[in-house]
This record gives sequence, structure tokens and C-alpha cells, in this order.
Amino acid sequence: MWGGRFASTPDDAMQAINASIDVDKRLWREDIEGSKAHADMLAAQGIITREDNAAIQAGLDKIAAEIVAGTFPFSAELEDIHLNIEARLTERIGEAGKRLHTARSRNDQVATDFKLWTMRASREAADGLRALQKSLVKRADECADWIMPGFTHLQAAQPVTLGHHLLAYVNMLERDRVRIIGGALEAAWECPLGAAALAGTSYRIDRDMTAEALGFHAPASNSLDAVGARDFALAALASLSIAATHLSRLAEEIVLWTSPQFAFARLSDAWSTGSSIMPQKRNPDAAELVRAKAARIGADFAALNGIVQKLPLAYAKDLQEDKALTFNAIDSFALCVTATIGMIEGLTFNREVMRQAAAQGYSTATDLADWLVRELKMPFREAHEVTGRIVRRAEEAGVWELAHLPLSEFQAVEPRIDEAARATLTVEKSVESRDSYGGTAPERVREQIARWKENFE
Amino acid sequence: MWGGRFASTPDDAMQAINASIDVDKRLWREDIEGSKAHADMLAAQGIITREDNAAIQAGLDKIAAEIVAGTFPFSAELEDIHLNIEARLTERIGEAGKRLHTARSRNDQVATDFKLWTMRASREAADGLRALQKSLVKRADECADWIMPGFTHLQAAQPVTLGHHLLAYVNMLERDRVRIIGGALEAAWECPLGAAALAGTSYRIDRDMTAEALGFHAPASNSLDAVGARDFALAALASLSIAATHLSRLAEEIVLWTSPQFAFARLSDAWSTGSSIMPQKRNPDAAELVRAKAARIGADFAALNGIVQKLPLAYAKDLQEDKALTFNAIDSFALCVTATIGMIEGLTFNREVMRQAAAQGYSTATDLADWLVRELKMPFREAHEVTGRIVRRAEEAGVWELAHLPLSEFQAVEPRIDEAARATLTVEKSVESRDSYGGTAPERVREQIARWKENFE
Amino acid sequence: MWGGRFASTPDDAMQAINASIDVDKRLWREDIEGSKAHADMLAAQGIITREDNAAIQAGLDKIAAEIVAGTFPFSAELEDIHLNIEARLTERIGEAGKRLHTARSRNDQVATDFKLWTMRASREAADGLRALQKSLVKRADECADWIMPGFTHLQAAQPVTLGHHLLAYVNMLERDRVRIIGGALEAAWECPLGAAALAGTSYRIDRDMTAEALGFHAPASNSLDAVGARDFALAALASLSIAATHLSRLAEEIVLWTSPQFAFARLSDAWSTGSSIMPQKRNPDAAELVRAKAARIGADFAALNGIVQKLPLAYAKDLQEDKALTFNAIDSFALCVTATIGMIEGLTFNREVMRQAAAQGYSTATDLADWLVRELKMPFREAHEVTGRIVRRAEEAGVWELAHLPLSEFQAVEPRIDEAARATLTVEKSVESRDSYGGTAPERVREQIARWKENFE
Amino acid sequence: MWGGRFASTPDDAMQAINASIDVDKRLWREDIEGSKAHADMLAAQGIITREDNAAIQAGLDKIAAEIVAGTFPFSAELEDIHLNIEARLTERIGEAGKRLHTARSRNDQVATDFKLWTMRASREAADGLRALQKSLVKRADECADWIMPGFTHLQAAQPVTLGHHLLAYVNMLERDRVRIIGGALEAAWECPLGAAALAGTSYRIDRDMTAEALGFHAPASNSLDAVGARDFALAALASLSIAATHLSRLAEEIVLWTSPQFAFARLSDAWSTGSSIMPQKRNPDAAELVRAKAARIGADFAALNGIVQKLPLAYAKDLQEDKALTFNAIDSFALCVTATIGMIEGLTFNREVMRQAAAQGYSTATDLADWLVRELKMPFREAHEVTGRIVRRAEEAGVWELAHLPLSEFQAVEPRIDEAARATLTVEKSVESRDSYGGTAPERVREQIARWKENFE
Repeated sequence: MWGGRFASTPDDAMQAINASIDVDKRLWREDIEGSKAHADMLAAQGIITREDNAAIQAGLDKIAAEIVAGTFPFSAELEDIHLNIEARLTERIGEAGKRLHTARSRNDQVATDFKLWTMRASREAADGLRALQKSLVKRADECADWIMPGFTHLQAAQPVTLGHHLLAYVNMLERDRVRIIGGALEAAWECPLGAAALAGTSYRIDRDMTAEALGFHAPASNSLDAVGARDFALAALASLSIAATHLSRLAEEIVLWTSPQFAFARLSDAWSTGSSIMPQKRNPDAAELVRAKAARIGADFAALNGIVQKLPLAYAKDLQEDKALTFNAIDSFALCVTATIGMIEGLTFNREVMRQAAAQGYSTATDLADWLVRELKMPFREAHEVTGRIVRRAEEAGVWELAHLPLSEFQAVEPRIDEAARATLTVEKSVESRDSYGGTAPERVREQIARWKENFE
Repeated sequence: MWGGRFASTPDDAMQAINASIDVDKRLWREDIEGSKAHADMLAAQGIITREDNAAIQAGLDKIAAEIVAGTFPFSAELEDIHLNIEARLTERIGEAGKRLHTARSRNDQVATDFKLWTMRASREAADGLRALQKSLVKRADECADWIMPGFTHLQAAQPVTLGHHLLAYVNMLERDRVRIIGGALEAAWECPLGAAALAGTSYRIDRDMTAEALGFHAPASNSLDAVGARDFALAALASLSIAATHLSRLAEEIVLWTSPQFAFARLSDAWSTGSSIMPQKRNPDAAELVRAKAARIGADFAALNGIVQKLPLAYAKDLQEDKALTFNAIDSFALCVTATIGMIEGLTFNREVMRQAAAQGYSTATDLADWLVRELKMPFREAHEVTGRIVRRAEEAGVWELAHLPLSEFQAVEPRIDEAARATLTVEKSVESRDSYGGTAPERVREQIARWKENFE
Repeated sequence: MWGGRFASTPDDAMQAINASIDVDKRLWREDIEGSKAHADMLAAQGIITREDNAAIQAGLDKIAAEIVAGTFPFSAELEDIHLNIEARLTERIGEAGKRLHTARSRNDQVATDFKLWTMRASREAADGLRALQKSLVKRADECADWIMPGFTHLQAAQPVTLGHHLLAYVNMLERDRVRIIGGALEAAWECPLGAAALAGTSYRIDRDMTAEALGFHAPASNSLDAVGARDFALAALASLSIAATHLSRLAEEIVLWTSPQFAFARLSDAWSTGSSIMPQKRNPDAAELVRAKAARIGADFAALNGIVQKLPLAYAKDLQEDKALTFNAIDSFALCVTATIGMIEGLTFNREVMRQAAAQGYSTATDLADWLVRELKMPFREAHEVTGRIVRRAEEAGVWELAHLPLSEFQAVEPRIDEAARATLTVEKSVESRDSYGGTAPERVREQIARWKENFE
Repeated sequence: MWGGRFASTPDDAMQAINASIDVDKRLWREDIEGSKAHADMLAAQGIITREDNAAIQAGLDKIAAEIVAGTFPFSAELEDIHLNIEARLTERIGEAGKRLHTARSRNDQVATDFKLWTMRASREAADGLRALQKSLVKRADECADWIMPGFTHLQAAQPVTLGHHLLAYVNMLERDRVRIIGGALEAAWECPLGAAALAGTSYRIDRDMTAEALGFHAPASNSLDAVGARDFALAALASLSIAATHLSRLAEEIVLWTSPQFAFARLSDAWSTGSSIMPQKRNPDAAELVRAKAARIGADFAALNGIVQKLPLAYAKDLQEDKALTFNAIDSFALCVTATIGMIEGLTFNREVMRQAAAQGYSTATDLADWLVRELKMPFREAHEVTGRIVRRAEEAGVWELAHLPLSEFQAVEPRIDEAARATLTVEKSVESRDSYGGTAPERVREQIARWKENFE
């Protein structure tokens, strides 16, 4: 025999494969909502009586209450959430319960429930991103003019402001938010309910009525597409993947900033794990998990995309995995957003260390070159060469900031450089000067902060 | 030594790593366009003279002509397309060429060029999908009422019309198209040009002017974001992945339909590969490659997403891979669309075989159950049970279509079933009856075809 | 506020992120085993007393009994399985419990537990594959000479035997099995225990003793590698991915074979889901889920590989996700194997339908060409052309099997073709003739079956 | 019309899809080798004459020479490398060339060529890893006792030696090497040649002879498996993915170490890209590309695994993508290895900065706790608490290294702590003390270096 991990009998194994109730019970709210809308429509069309509908509505409300109260008797034998609720309904209200499933099938029911769930979860994810944006803008406001190194290749390139850096993420998250909401709007375009098994139905149903009741724009225009497509879930997973990638980048920065080598920032107690004997140690566990979760969300998309890729129309059981993957992605994403808000709000930045790091390494050399071009009308390439020669003199002299190099050293290379030029080479002057639209100058950063605040109202 | 696959000297290897010209030369058109807009702006702002600008414009036009003519001397030593063009410009027009790079950097230049390229390629991909939709609608129109089995789990479930089946893909591709175009519109929101290296610039540039000239809505509002983000490419790859997944599903169906076991359709000579000694053999190579390409496009997204996930702001060399991945995805996608159009237009469907397949297996059993509910007011679950008993009688009698079963057999189970009921059990009646909105009934299919045709105009 | 999906307070969220007990409790057996070996060694080295060790051994045995009995009080506040067990031990045996953690750290403890678990799970997975191989060989034995179409491009190419086809999977699974076992052996090479936090320890421990007690070949030779590497899990996931891909191919075939269009086989009741009104309908749900699970296992590998890719040495919290991913892959794989065994054992093949499908489409045309080369010494390309002409005559005559074409038709193209030649063109003769080593001839298949049976003993 | 990216006519597009010569021409060496072995065998078996064989051997040698010389006329119309070579052979030697393809088919030919190529490329990749190991061991030898911070969570945890850190990668790469070679050995087990199209052949071939000539252990025992399986490529890609992940981790460390915030090391000129005006700037482009390539290699595995997952036996055109993916992975891997060797050999470590970083942050606190346990027989948990109190006193006193704290401060918490205890708290003493097997103590590191050097001989 080959191990206890495997079900003892084929039948148990088949049941284990088939039952999805442990996963899909999270759809209960949408399932009840969909059934209520369907029953109302059946009554309005005279397909069931008003009395039956009244019984169904009341019965479903009671089931909802049971589930909220934790008293609903979930059964694995009844396979999934849809059969669990329907069986319970019939148990409670008798005959009328059996009439609920008229003119629909599990295929359109599942597609509708899962689409509704995904739409809502997407909107909540977008709300989460908005909350994070607010935290970032608040922190950016506090340190709009704090100076830090702007990195390329993790090498300090030019000084930037911390406010500007934080706002870069607000921009990214705004696109993520729009993308996620856009996906939810797209999903809301067409309601699968009424597509029945795969071919539509011969009952005189009113699909506009159910679509409207459930918040969709219109009923789905092709029944095969309605029950067999899952691109609404794929689009949601793709947009979550991209947004999680942005959160992962920010998490990577938090790990770097709070490492002793950078020491740009310190995590709050609540958002780090410590060591009883190394008090300065604050492990950025939450940031590390955000990175790891981002990889998993990407894999959730890859898995579902790979699954759907193989399938002829209309429905195949492979699609059952759509929910476990989407639920994991949404849960992981919520956790990433919550953790990032927590970390951002609790970060203590070390202004002096960051300024110091920004000043080192001739980070204002391009400012000197720009001065040469602007004031002396020197051609760009020549200006760069002159600057290079001055920087090398500074290096030989062991002076690590251009602003600290004596004027005579500048003039030894280019006599026209004056004190005013030298005065522009501090990191403060440098960031102030980068005041083109979208630039790092504090005034530009404050402009953007104001724009975001207005936007948030 | 360990093998000729490896560069002989470190320096060669480093150059091999660094040079991207073989890949990014495809950006030449966007690079020239961006430079022309930038130079016009520099002149308008008085940063360069009108004369210099005129020389630059003329020089760039000549370079474009050289590239089109195949006479441009690409050089790997000049690393990438941007330096190749700039060096050639200076070679041609002298000093003025050296002034072009004022107030920009390679970082914003690359981001702008690649964004423009991706936007255009996305729009072309969307146009390709539209062309495919037209082919599908044309074929759907020809066989709006041809009957085929509607499958779930690759088991025949209910009869549907071929027109309906083909239109399901038109629906999917419409969402794909909207998603791809939406991504291009999102990308067009902000123009990176003018973000310079990463912090903006101190020159008095007019970013609105360049943004408008290049077809963007506005200049990018955060310079770090502008040079360091690649979500526009990720979003494009994600949407292409999902669309390719739909093409893969259709390709899977073409492989099935044209297999001798299905024999639903036959590929044209142009879109199949044959065998000199088995004349009936038509290998669906193109369909198989569409499936394989879909997997690769998904992997392109996964690779770029994984790459970006690791990166602190603003730019890191890892991002250089963005182009190879995006180019491969776009090329593969174009090939998939072209091949699918070719296959769809050339397919010969075998109406009789499909109808036959649809009729087998009691595929109209639900129609009988629906009749019992509708006409005899039988409760749904009871109707299903009655139907089940009749089907089992048919099975025992060796009759594989319900419409061929004698009336007496029906009445032996339920005496109220009459000839009219039995007459509804042909596949033709079945599909006609599924006439709820979005259903498979030919009249509904024709309605949708008309809607699409109007839409296409 | 932005939704109930998100934890109400940051602290709750941080705890939710940090606690891994829900996932890692599955390591309890390995954790106790590792602790027992560690305590024995500490006592042997005189680092703890024999009395303390006796108390620890007894205490751990009782904890194991509690966990088996379901009475162990798991606590989320104690974060993970390791702290849960240690705290419980101290609760039970007092002071001695606090001495257990001497000369080790959670880092080497986790690495050891998880490695042990992965090794065992891998061996069980390999055993599962062996069981499946036996089922396949048994079925191959039953139908060693049953004839079916051999497909390329899902087009019938040449007749093969069903036994041969089933044995192809036995071959693939053998390589999978070897690969999985090889990974477990590789993992068993070095034992992480004793690497401590990351740098080794100054206690006089005997790492050979613990390594041997836990079934490893030797202690790990580098402590940073021991606590920071996870390639043993990646290798396991990769090998499971490839094996799952083979199971997915077989599942794909089962879906095809049992579709009404193929009708090559019928699933048993236990391994299909039916329809109350379409008795012939047997949905291959289990096969479909095997396909979907294969995609998920591949994504598990991709996720963990992406996670590890980002990490400098030695340990980062990102690695906590290793367990959830590996557990899911192992569970999914076990389910795939169980389901495949169940399906294979219960399949009823339709010999006549398969033979019929094999005979159609001139599948023995290459046999004719081979005869021309062998008997008439015709050059290969000429033989192919002659065969092509004969096939086209058959097609025009509406004869779909070469063996049914009158001899005169053959001789009209090539007069030297005689009755003996024609007699070789049945599918039976065709498969018999392919008797080179590894070929589809029944005698060759029986040879391979005998080899496997011997192998299994 | 919808864009110039798409082929103008369907036929062009079909040809573009079908022709693989641009990709598979890299198999020319293996194709010729396979054909020579096949022809020798055909002659030995009397299937072709000795004269024909002599002509074939000579013809193939000349073709090889043409390809090496760059004069071979590759033709896209002849689709692939196999047909190109065969057609050229017939052009050169006439009739005999047409006899080469007897008793084989393109299916077994492709499988054989590609397997041979993958085996060789794998062995070269393993050789590359061995070369990198040698570079690492050489550097480890130079700085076996240099002290650096050992990180967990990118927070300094305990001091380690640089030699130990570098050897951790030697260990990882050894497992990678073994895994890659193991895959090549596995692939060498069975030779596909002779499996013919998919069913074997009726010619009296000697498959043992060809298998042996091509360096395989035996002929493949199942013809369907031989032509349809690609797990040898999947296994190679998986092992390359894992090895690339290790290279990516090392690359990540190089990026960190060479950042100004760490300043642990400096890249050589040859392996960094600089800036004309910031002389200290050395962008670690090669390290960044190694990270990016690791993500791509992982995606290559994912793509091929996803492709194979969908396929029933035996061959489908989807598999044509196997080569492009494997070639890209191997090329990328070679580049990663070369770049890593170049970077490692050229790194200049800054011993003083690293030692300084290791000493900060009470990194020897666990050494103090260990002393309390060992010398004062204090229970472990109590020792930790005492240490914690001392560390907090140091923090309050603004002393960042325990070894610099006056003895009186220690004794204020625990009077039994003496000067000898305090003397153990330097980073030098700390690393020396971790001398358990596999620990970071310089003597242990030197032991491992000696072991590796012996191993390399």
C-alpha cells in the first residue's frame, strides 16, 4: 500500500474530488441574492405563483440568517453551496422550494454567483487601494521636502524628495485601482442568469428584470458564452497580479530602507517582529510576506489561465478550480494591502540619514552640467566632460559632496564657474531646481498632494 | 574550458549582455517620432534654435528613410536603437545633433518609445480581433440554424446551433478587444517624456506640447513613476494572454472538429498540412500552434511580472527584458489571429454529421421535461423523473433519439403525453424553442448577427 | 471603511500574517521526531542530563498521542507548530522542556522538519505512481492486441495496440517516479539540524548522530545553505509538475475516449457523474479535475521559484509560503493519482469501435509502401508515390480501408502487387509487422508487460 | 486591413507558422550524427548497400563542412533542418540519399536530435556551474576569515565569515550540477531512433547499434513514448530554473553589496557600467540581467509544461515550441553563468566596512547567552533574558557593540560575568566559536575549501 495520504476507497476519493462545498460556501450571499431575484422574476412572469414566491423569499431570508448565525447544517454530500441551500429551502418550505430551479440550471447559477462575488471582491480590493493611497499621500505630505537618494540600479543617481517617491506609488496604485474597477464594470455588463444549462430556455423568462435586480447592465447575449467563459475572473486575477507587483516593489523598498545598512526608516512595533536579545532588530516580516504573496497571486492567474486554455465550450469540471484560485488571490491581496497600510503609517523615517545618503557620490553633478549649458551656453556633451573632470578632482581630494569642494578646484577646470554656480550644488538646491511638471521639486510635490487630496474627497 | 556556447572573454560576454540593439531596433519609428516632438518643443521654448531644430528634423527624416531602405548602419557597439540614431544624426548634421539630448535622458526616452510602441501594437491586435470577429459572424450567418451538439464535459448535452456556437467566440473576443483597447487608452493617459533620468529637469520645457504631439492625454505627473513603471506593458501582456486563451479554446475545438472521430469539419488545403499517402489526413498544425503560442504568451506575462516584482524604484537593468517579452507576445498573438481567421474562413462544416451527433443520446430529454412542467403543470422534479423513465425505455429498446421512439412507449409511462409533445422532441424543435434572450434559437442567433453587423459598420 | 474582508485592526492583520499554525501543523510528526533525535544527542554529548532527556522523550511521546487523539490544544498565539509543541512540553515536564532548544534554532528546526516531510511525501507520491503503473500494466495485459488508431495531431496515423498505448504511460511514469525518488534521495544527503540560526553553534554537538537518527546521509556542510536553501522543495515541486503533466495527458485521453464522438471507452459508475435523464451521459469529472490540478501544481512550482529568486541569504519570511505551496501540490498530486487509478481500473474499452476507427482512413498505407520497398526493391520515394496513387483510387471508389480494395485496383497501378501483399493491409497484419524493439506488435507489447511485471516484484 | 505586422496572405502566414528552420537549424550537428549512425546500421543490416552508405557518410561530412563554413544554402521552403539536410544530400549524392530515410520517420529523428542536443547542452551547463564553483572557492579561500554580517530578513543577525557565505553558493550549485547531470543521464537512458512515426517499424533494424553509436544506454522500449514525450526537456528546464534561481539570489546579493548603502564590495570595470560624470557609480547591469534571465528561464519551463499538459499521444505540432523555449533557457543560463563568474572574479570586497557592519547591533548577544548557559549552567531561557537586559543597558549608553561595553555594565546585571566572558564578544571570537561541523568558524571554512579543491581535481 502506498500511504495514508490517499483516500482509502475510490468512492471516497471521487467524493473528495467532486465536493466543492468547503470552497464555494463563500458564495452563499450571492447564491441567495440570485435565487431571490430569480424567484421574483418567475412570479412576475406567472411561472410560479405569488404565494410560492413569498414562501421562497421568506425561506431564503431565514437561511441567510442561519448562515450568519453559524447554525446552517452544511453537508458535503450535497456537494456545493447551491444544492445545500436549495435542499434546505425545500426542507423548510416544501413544494415551493422545488419550483425555484425552474428555467435555470446550475451552470448559469454558478456563473452568476461567482461573477457577483468577483465583482464585489474587486470593488473592495479597489477600496483597499484607495485607503492605501490616502496613507501614502498623508505620509508624502509630512515629508514633501525631505531629501533622499533617487536610485537607479540601486545606485544613488540624483537627489529626490521622499514625498515625490511615495507619490510615485500613489500613481501606480491609481492605475491599478482603475484597472480593477474597470474589470468589475466589464463583468457587470452582462448577467449570465437565464442562460440555463448552455442553450437558453423555452420558458418566457424576463432576463432584463433579473439582470437589473442583480446590478448588471443587461442579460448575457449568448448563453454558451455566459456559462462557459471565465475571463471576468482572469481579468480580475491579472489586475490583482499587477497591483500586487506594485505592492511587492514597495515592500522590497521597506525591507531595504529598514535594513541597518540603509537605516532610512524604522518599522513600528506593531508591524515588525523583534528579538528578545537584539532590541534594535525589527524584522520586516509583513513586507516579506507581501513579496511572497505577490508571487502567489501571479501564480493564481497563471493556473486559471492554463486551465481555461485547454477547454472546448461550454463547461468542463476543470473550471471548478476557478474559485479556490480567485479566493486565494483576493484574500492574499487584502492581506497585502492591510499590511502595507499598517507598515506605511507606522514607518519612522530618518531624515538626516536619508539626506546624507543623497548628498554622497556627486549626486548633483548633473546640476553642474546643466548650469554650464544654461549659463555658459556650453554644448551639452562638452559640459558633461568638464563636469567629469571636476568630479575626478573632488574624488582625488577625498571630498564626497560637490557642494563641499572649494571654488578654486572648480575654477582650475573652468574659470567661469562662480560662487553662485557652486551654491546650486547642494541637494536642497538640486531638488528645488527640478521643477518641471512631474518633477521632484517640493512645490511640484505639494501640487500633486493637493490634487490627490481633492481627488479623494 | 567549458564549451563553445559561452563567450570567450568576459568582455564579450558583458557586451552580449548589455547590447540590446538586436531587440530594440524595432522601436526605431517611435524613437524618431519622439525625438522630433522633443526637438520641436525645445525650439518652441527657445532651448535650441530654430535652425538647429530644422537640421534635426531633416536629419531624422533621412535616418527614417535609411532604415526603411535597409541602408542604416546599425552598430552593436552603440548598444541600443537610441544611441544608434543619435550618433547617426550627429554624424549627418554635426553640432545640432548634440543638442537634441538636452532636457531628456535615455530613461524617459526609452519609456516613451516603448509605451508608444505597445499602444500601437495593442491597437493593431485589437484590429486583428475585429477582423476575426467579422469572419466568425460571416460563418455564423451562413449556418445560423445548423444543428450541432452543445457540449459540457465534452459530452453532448443539448442541441445548439452552429451559428450560436461561433457567436459565443465573437462575444469573448469583444471583451478581449475592449480590454486591449482599454489598456492602450490607459497607457495614452500620461507621457513619460520630460521625466528625464528620474527626477524631472530644471529646463523650462513644455511637457504638454510633447505629450500632445505624441498622442498622449497629458504629461506624466510623477517622474519616478514615469521612468520606473511598466504596468502598461504588463496590462497589455495580461490582456493578450486572456485573448490568446480564447483563441486556444477555439483552436482546441478546431482540432476536435476536424479529427476523424468528430468529422464535424474539414480544414482548407491552405490551412492544413497533409500526407502524400493518406489523402484524407489534414493535420491542423496551425490550430495546434495557436494553442502552444497561447501558453507562451501567458509565460511572457509571468516572466515580466516576476521581473518587475523584485525592483525598488526607479529603474533597473532587469527591465531591459520587457521588450523581448512584449515583442514575442505581440508577434505570437498576430500569428494566432491570422491563423485563426485563415482556418475559420476555410472550414467546411459537415451539416449532416453534426446534426446526427446532436440527435444522439437523448439530447432533447430536457425538452420533454419542460413540456411536462409547462403543459401538465407537473412539478419540476417529478417531470424529470418521468422523463428519466421514458429515456430508459428508449435505451432498452435500442432507440437512440427520443423523437424516434413510438408514442406508445411515452404513454406507457405518462398517458397524457400526446403526438404534439412527441413532435417537439426533434433537435430542430428543440433549438427553436430555446428562444429566450441569448438562447440558441435561430431567430435569436440572427438577431445577434444583425446586431454585430451593425456594430461593425 | 473598505470592507469586512479586511482585518479590523492592524494587530489582528499582523497576527494573521505571522501565524502559520493552520498550515504547518502538518509537520507535527517530523517536529517531534527531530526533537527526540536532538535531545538524545544532547544527552549523549552531556549537554543535558539523561534524566532531562528521559522526561523530554516521554513528554514528546505523550504530545504525539494527544495530536493523534485530537486533544492537543493548538494555539494561534504560539504562532507555529514548533512553538506549540515546545510550550506544551514545558507545560507538561517543566524545566527540562526549556533545555530542549539548546544548540538549535527555529531556522534549522524548520528546515529539518520540512525537508523530512517533503522526502516522505515524495516517496509516497512515488509509491502512488507505482500503484498506477500496476493498474496500467494490468489493463495493458488484458488488451495487449486490441487495435486502436495511433494518433498524431489527433488524426489517425497508423494502427497501434491499446496495450502499447497504455504502456507508453507506464514508461513516462517510471521516469517520473525515478525523478521524484531521486529528489528525495538528494534531499536525504544533508541534514540541516545543527546549523542553528544560520552560523552553526559553539556547543559540542554531534551532528552525525542526529543526521543518522533522522535518516540522512550526513550533516549539512554549510550552515547558511542549510537554513536558507529550499531547492529540495523546488525539485520536488518540479518533478511533481512533470508527472502531473503526464497524468493530465492521460486524463485528456480519457475525456476524448469517453466522449460520444470517440466512444472508445466508458467510465465506471464510481468514477463518473451522471445525469438522471440522460442515462448514457457519464461526465468525466475526475479526469477534468486531474487536468486542472496539473495546472495548479505547475503554478505551485512557479510561485515558490519566484519567491526564492528574490532572496539574499540566509532566511527571509517569504519562505514561509513554501509549505502551503508544497502541501497543496502533494495533496493535489495524491488526488490525481488516486483518481487516475480509479478511472483506469474501471474503464470499459469498446474493442470493436476502436478497431473500426483504426481501419478507416487508409491507416495501413505505409505498410503497402514498405512492402513495395521490401519485396520489389522499389526506392522509398517511388514506393510512396505508387501508394498515393492507389489510395486515391480507393477514395474515388468510396472504399475507406485499403484491405477492402479489390486486387485489380492495386494492379491497375502496379501489376506486381499480389494477393499476399493485399493480405498484409489489415490492421491486424499491420500491428503484427511493427515488431522492431519497442514497436506496437502484440508480441513486443507482451514482452514489455513481462518485463514490467518482473520489475514490480 | 489591420496592420503590417500581419502576413499579407494566408499562405504566407501558414508558411511562417510551419517553417521552423530559423530555430531548429541549431540541431544540424545532431541531425548529421544521427543520420550517420542510422545509415551505418542500415548497411550493417543489409537494408542499404555498403556503397550507398559510403556515399551517405561522405555526403553528410561534406554538408557538415558546408554548415561550419557558412556556405550551406538553408531554405525556408524545406521547412526544417532535417529536410534541408536530406534534400541537400540527395542533391549531392543522388539516389543513395533517398534511401537514408528508410525505417525512420521525422518523428523519431526530431526526438533523437533534440534529445542529443539537450543532453549536451545540459552537460555544458553543468560544466559552467563547475567553473563558477571554482571561482567561488578561490574567492572563499582568499577571505576565509573575513567577517561580515550574517543576515536574516536583511537584518544583521550574527557575524559570519565571507568565505562561509560564498561556500553556501558552492553547495547550492553542486546540487544544481548534480540535478542537471542527472537529467542528462536520464535522457541518455533510451534512444528514440527506430521508433519511426509512432508505432515502430517492420524493417529488421538493429536499434541497439544506433543507440550505442549515439551514446545512449539502450533503445527506447515504447515507440509512442519515444516520439511523444518531452519530459527530458522539461526536466532540463526545471533544473536550469532552480539553478538560475540560485544565481539570481547571488546576483541580488551583488546588487546589495555594491550599493553605496552597503559598500561591501566593488565591481570590476569589465563587469559594471559607469557614468562619465559620477566616477564612483558602477551599475551592476550584469547582476540585474541575471535576475531577469532567471525569471525568463522559469517562464520557459512553465510554457513548455503548459504546452505538453494538453496533448493526447503521440505527437502534436504544439511540441514544435519545445526547441525555441529550450534554446532560450540554455542561452540565458550560459550568459548568467558567464556573467556571474566575471562578477565574482572581479569583485573587490571592503573588509573593513563588512567587519564594521558585522559588529554593530549587538550581533554577538547570542554568544553572551551561550556563555551564561555553558559557564554558569544558567537555563537557556534565563540566559536570554539576562542578555536582553545587558543589551538594553548598552543601547541606553549609546554603545553599539557589546565588546565595547565596560565590564561594570555587564556585572550590574549579572555579577558573575568576568573579563574572559566579555573578551568572547568580539566578532572575531564569535565566528571562531561557531566551529561545529558546517559552522562559520574559519577553520571549518578552510576544511570545506580543502574538500572542494580535492573534489575539483
